[in-house]
This record gives sequence, structure tokens and C-alpha cells, in this order.
Amino acid sequence: MANIALMGHGVVGSGVAEVLLKNKEAFEGKLGEEVNLKYILDLRDFDVPYKNLFTKDFQTIVQDKSVSVVVEVMGGLKPAYDFVKTCLENGKSVVTSNKELVAAKGAELLRLAREHNVNFLFEASVGGGIPIIRPMHQCLAANEIREVAGILNGTTNFILTKMIREQMAFDEALKLAQSLGYAEKDPTADIEGGDACRKICILASLAYGKHVYPEQVKTEGITKLTSEDVAYAESWGGVIKLIGRAKKLENGKLHIMVSPAFISRESQLAGVDDVFNGILVRGDATGDVVFYGKGAGKLPTASAVVADIIDEIKHKDTIKTLYWEDGSKDYVEQYENYSTPMYIRCSAQNTKTALAQANELFGTVNMLARKNQPENEVAFVTPVLTEKAIAEGIKKLELSGVSVLAQIRILDY
Amino acid sequence: MANIALMGHGVVGSGVAEVLLKNKEAFEGKLGEEVNLKYILDLRDFDVPYKNLFTKDFQTIVQDKSVSVVVEVMGGLKPAYDFVKTCLENGKSVVTSNKELVAAKGAELLRLAREHNVNFLFEASVGGGIPIIRPMHQCLAANEIREVAGILNGTTNFILTKMIREQMAFDEALKLAQSLGYAEKDPTADIEGGDACRKICILASLAYGKHVYPEQVKTEGITKLTSEDVAYAESWGGVIKLIGRAKKLENGKLHIMVSPAFISRESQLAGVDDVFNGILVRGDATGDVVFYGKGAGKLPTASAVVADIIDEIKHKDTIKTLYWEDGSKDYVEQYENYSTPMYIRCSAQNTKTALAQANELFGTVNMLARKNQPENEVAFVTPVLTEKAIAEGIKKLELSGVSVLAQIRILDY
Repeated sequence: MANIALMGHGVVGSGVAEVLLKNKEAFEGKLGEEVNLKYILDLRDFDVPYKNLFTKDFQTIVQDKSVSVVVEVMGGLKPAYDFVKTCLENGKSVVTSNKELVAAKGAELLRLAREHNVNFLFEASVGGGIPIIRPMHQCLAANEIREVAGILNGTTNFILTKMIREQMAFDEALKLAQSLGYAEKDPTADIEGGDACRKICILASLAYGKHVYPEQVKTEGITKLTSEDVAYAESWGGVIKLIGRAKKLENGKLHIMVSPAFISRESQLAGVDDVFNGILVRGDATGDVVFYGKGAGKLPTASAVVADIIDEIKHKDTIKTLYWEDGSKDYVEQYENYSTPMYIRCSAQNTKTALAQANELFGTVNMLARKNQPENEVAFVTPVLTEKAIAEGIKKLELSGVSVLAQIRILDY
Repeated sequence: MANIALMGHGVVGSGVAEVLLKNKEAFEGKLGEEVNLKYILDLRDFDVPYKNLFTKDFQTIVQDKSVSVVVEVMGGLKPAYDFVKTCLENGKSVVTSNKELVAAKGAELLRLAREHNVNFLFEASVGGGIPIIRPMHQCLAANEIREVAGILNGTTNFILTKMIREQMAFDEALKLAQSLGYAEKDPTADIEGGDACRKICILASLAYGKHVYPEQVKTEGITKLTSEDVAYAESWGGVIKLIGRAKKLENGKLHIMVSPAFISRESQLAGVDDVFNGILVRGDATGDVVFYGKGAGKLPTASAVVADIIDEIKHKDTIKTLYWEDGSKDYVEQYENYSTPMYIRCSAQNTKTALAQANELFGTVNMLARKNQPENEVAFVTPVLTEKAIAEGIKKLELSGVSVLAQIRILDY
């Protein structure tokens, strides 16, 4: 019999409890072993049929030697980090959906798990119900991963979809997302890119075997996007998406960034709309493989957590290849050294002069046009240049009286 | 040290040899065990750097007790089936990319593997380099799979893409596919749907735990599709794709079919173009999860094979949950009992009368229009009806002098 303890009975936690209790017999049939939800740790009281399982004392779980798997779905770092650490040190495997915890402490917790011959599993931390951690880990067996990129946050993707399809303004789309429960009252972590940043950190750490910390990642949100930019993206032949991406560079460093980007309408990520997530893994042998589905929600996330629990029960030894080492300060390349084409939108008294100047500063640019374009507006796409060179060009452009209103990177996924 | 034998040195086989030999050290680092390609079985001679590994005698492999994993990439049933059986009976795990073998003999070979405490793995048999067998198997742990559907054949998808995007006729697109090496000289297995049929059989067997044999599956290819149908699909708001799909019905039977179908432009499968494959798994908890990538080719397929080899070396015991039982005669529901909306294209002397009659026979139909539509052509979509009712309606329509030129199912993925 495998005894499970659940820490946290919020949205995901109650989903996990539901799935575990509902499918108890099916699991036993498959595993040849009883899966017994023994404790639920939560400070709140719940009036649920299984309320006898609740405890308010973490020590009950740690000290019960019969508990072999602990599920952490509390979220946040405190007290989740201490609790998870203590569980691993006491020889209990941990399954978590907590992206903040994995992004901040993954390397340390994976090492602890290995030292105590248990597992630290986190399929649900990225992409909700989409299987991504395990396929990527498996994929790595026979592939070198060239790049990984994805639409990793459902809230911002919902907002962008409304801006693109229904020409909503950002504020209006955000309000709609909040009223539908897709965005929190304080939406900062979503709209400023912090949530997507944690997820790309986890994917990059797994892909390249070395921890990337969120504070190392240049992160831009979607708050500055306007319907003008959406229209220019369309005339360019694509859409704007918030993309987290990571790529190993030839110098051994990592390029990693979260920002809005133009992607072509032909891209498999372009059709990932509403609250859906899509993740593209570019392997040297497989080519592009894309995983798509619901990135959040009670049951999708709970089902990913339960898949980890089952996996843990099936393979009790540490999965040695699910591992990455500590990060280092100089591991991430300065984003200013990375090259990209850039969409730039300006306002200028004389747009012809502005465009001529842009051509001089950036090399031949590609002019864009949109419906109802005001006379003083000019938009274009630069050739591939380093971010540093682009920033210098923009500075010079502004010195000559041109106002640069927007700049958005162009990606080739 | 894990000794591997490879049976077959064709496109996939040479890819597997390449990956195994090239990444030898990386594998050892990851697995803590040497991965040694010991034999390659092929009747042909090859002038390759590793030609010392070749043997023409299957017995060399069977009788070498040090060989623990045998990779079968010969294709076809003879002699692959006998060879694989013999390997399993002799306590060797088998990894295969052979969809014909898995679709015809999967249940039997999985049982044999279990009896001898070894594994029979076949990630590469569906979707080339796309991880699908393993994620689906994993997904099953915490999900009930409602439906599985996919674009499973790259050749036909390439042809359809050319018909849709460049208005090529079927024959022209097929010739192009052949000249590019995407279609064989004898393209029957691709264009008549046989290849897609084997793959949906494998996916359905895995999803529902019971073997479905190709001969139980109603299979239609793409040879009858015309540019008129492509145009009507567009005016309806979608594209034509060759879709294999399976769904467990409430009566416990299985609905499974391969046929061209209209799918909405909004569908995540609609953007799967050219030689790419896309597979949608609809779980009760996860919702729709889509896997997308290159469905064939030397390195993608080889990388899936190698991922299985690695998996086998890591988990030497039988993976008990990767299993399905024998099929039975009455397991698959007669397709005539299944309900669907249907697109129907006819030629009639009086199209108004024909349409009025269609309304009477099928209930209110949805008329479609296209550019350059000849006066005597009429096309419409029926309400949801059983295939039997639709067939009867069509018969009556034809009795009254209307010629039915095409009928294509409409799916809601």
C-alpha cells in the first residue's frame, strides 16, 4: 500500500483529492497496489466527505513513516520550500505543481531527492495538464534540444486573443479576463511575464541540465501592447504572442527571454489561442515537436499531479536522469548581445525623413502599413541586429525628434 | 553493459545505428552503463565504418545471452513477427518502429513480453519522432481518454496541403509527392488510408486496453477528393484532412474510422500541414492535448527508437501498465450506426428541386456555395444523422435523378 499525504486543499489540491479518491480502484488494478490518501494538510476547515483526512500539523505527515509520497500543492515559497525539503530529507518522495518553488529551488531539491534515493517530480508545474516535463526528459535521451519556446501563460494569451480577434484594448481585455476568473485581482505575475518566466526557467533547466533563476531572465510583459501593434503584426503576416524561449548558444551560455513577439501566422504556436498553452521543443533529431493543451485549471493540473504520483509508485528509485545542477552567475548571456529582427513603431513629423534615417541606422528596413494609419505614424521591421545595436539606433532616432512608441521582437518559430 | 542488436539496416535502422554510435558516451554518462551496439542483422552488405557488426544469421542474436535488447526496424510481418516472438521468448526486450507488426500482433507480443518479464516497446510506430505512446500511456494513469484523433500519415497530408493551398489536382499532388520521395512508387498504403488505419488501431488499443485489428476499421482514402470539395470545405470554414479517430461509446463498443473529413479552421489539427502529423487526445481531466511534429523520416523515427532503448535499459522489469488484451469480433461498432453531419455534393438538372428534396430527406440542410459553381451543382451539409440514414437518403436522392458526386464527414475536433 502506498500512503499519500496532500499539502494544500485549494483549487489543485481538491482536484487531486477528488481524482485519487474517485479512481482508487482503477489505480489499484493498474498498479497492483493500494493508493491510499492518508492526510490532507490545510489550516482551513472544509466540509467535504473526506474531512476525516485533514490535519493542521505538518509533523503528523513527516513523522508517519508509512507515508511515502507527499504532494505539495500549496503554492508560494513559504512554507512550501521548508516542508518539501523536510519531506525529502525524511525519505519521502515529493510531487509538486508549484512552479515558483521549482524555478527558485529546483536544483537543490533534485539533489536532496537524489541523496535520499527518492524523487522530486513536477510535471504539473509547467503546462497544466499538457505532458511536457516527462516527454522532454524522455526526448533528451536521444536528442540534443536546440531550442524550447512556448506560450506558457493562459491569462495573457486570453488577453492577446481578445486584442487580436475582437480588437479589444488591453485594459478592456484584462477586465474581461478578471470577470471570467482567468486573471487574478492583482494580475501582475501574469501580465508582467513573471509566471511565464518561471516556466521557461524550469524548461531551460531541464533541457540544458543547469539551473536558470528567474532573476537572470530578461522579462517583458504585455501591458504596453496596443491595438496599433496588433494591426501591424497582422499586416506583417502574423500575431503577437507572449513567448518564453531558451536556446543554448555556441559559446556555451544560454539565451533566455520572455517578451511579446511577432510570430508568423504559419507558426504552430500562432493558432494557440484563448487560455491554451503551446510548447515547442526543437530537437536535433526530432525537429520541431509541439505540445498543446489547457495550461491551467483544476482537473488538468490535478491529472498531471496524479500522473506523477503513479509514476513515483511504479518507479520507487530515484530517476537519475531527471536532474540538473546549480546555476551560475555568468551562465545566462546578456540579452543585449543577442540578435533579432525588431518591429519598431514611431511617430514623426516627417515620416519620409524618419524612414530614411531608419534605413541609415539599421540597414534596409521593411516598412509596414495598416488601415487608418495616421499621417505621422511609421512602422518597420529591422534586419537581424544585436539588441545593443537596435537600442543605439533607437536612441539616435529619438535624438532626431522621432518618438519610438513600440518595439517588439520577431521570432521564427 | 547493455548489448543491443539491430534487425534491419534500412532508413530507420541506419539512423538508429548512427545515433547509438554517435552518442555512445553521452548515453553512458546518463545511464551509468555502457550501451553497446553488438550486431546488425541484414541480408544486404553495406560499406559503413561499423561493417564488422553485421550478421546475416538471426540465430547469432538469439543465442547470444549477453544481448538484452533487440531493435526491430525491418518492417512488414514476415519475418519480423517470428523474429520478435523468438526474441521475447528468449528473454530479450524488443523495441520496434513497425506499425504493421504492432497493429496486427500487439496484444500477443505484449502478453509474451509480460510472460517473460521483458518489454515490447513501440514509441516509433506512431507519429515518428513525436512522443505519443509514452505520454498517452502516462496520461491514462489519471485520465479517462474520451477520444483520440489524428493526422497520422504525412504523405496524404502533404498531398492535401498542396490541393488546399495551391489548388493542385490529386494526381498532380501525388506525382509531386513521389518526385520528392514523400510517396512510394506504389502509394496505395498511404493514399487508401491503410497506414493511418494501422496507427489509429495502435492508439485505440492503447487508449482502451483492447486490441483493434486493421480489418475491423472502416477505412477511406483520399483518392476521390477533388478541388471542388476543397473549395466547399473552405466556404464552410475549414479544410479537408485525412483523420483517423477512435472513441469509446456508451454501449462499451468502439467507434473507429479513417476517412477524409471537414475540420474547422479553428481546430488545432487544421494547421497541421505538409508532411507533419498531429494527434489530439481528449481526456476527461486534461481536456484536449495535441501532439505535433514530423511523423516520419530517418532521424525523428530513429530518435523515438533510441528513447525506447534508453527507457528499456533504465527500467528492466516489464512495464505492467503498457498492455492491452486481445480484441474480439463484436468490439467495434458498425460504422453505419454512428452519427455525423455529412457534406454532400451533387449534380442535378434542377438544383432547387434537389435542395428541397434534400431538406425533406435529411431535415434542414445547410447549403454551401463556391466560386465558379456550375449551375447544375449543389452542395450542402446535413444535420447529425446516422450513416445508415444518410446512405438511405442518398439512395433516394439518386433515384430521383440527382447524382451524388461526393460525401465527406464533418468532425468537431
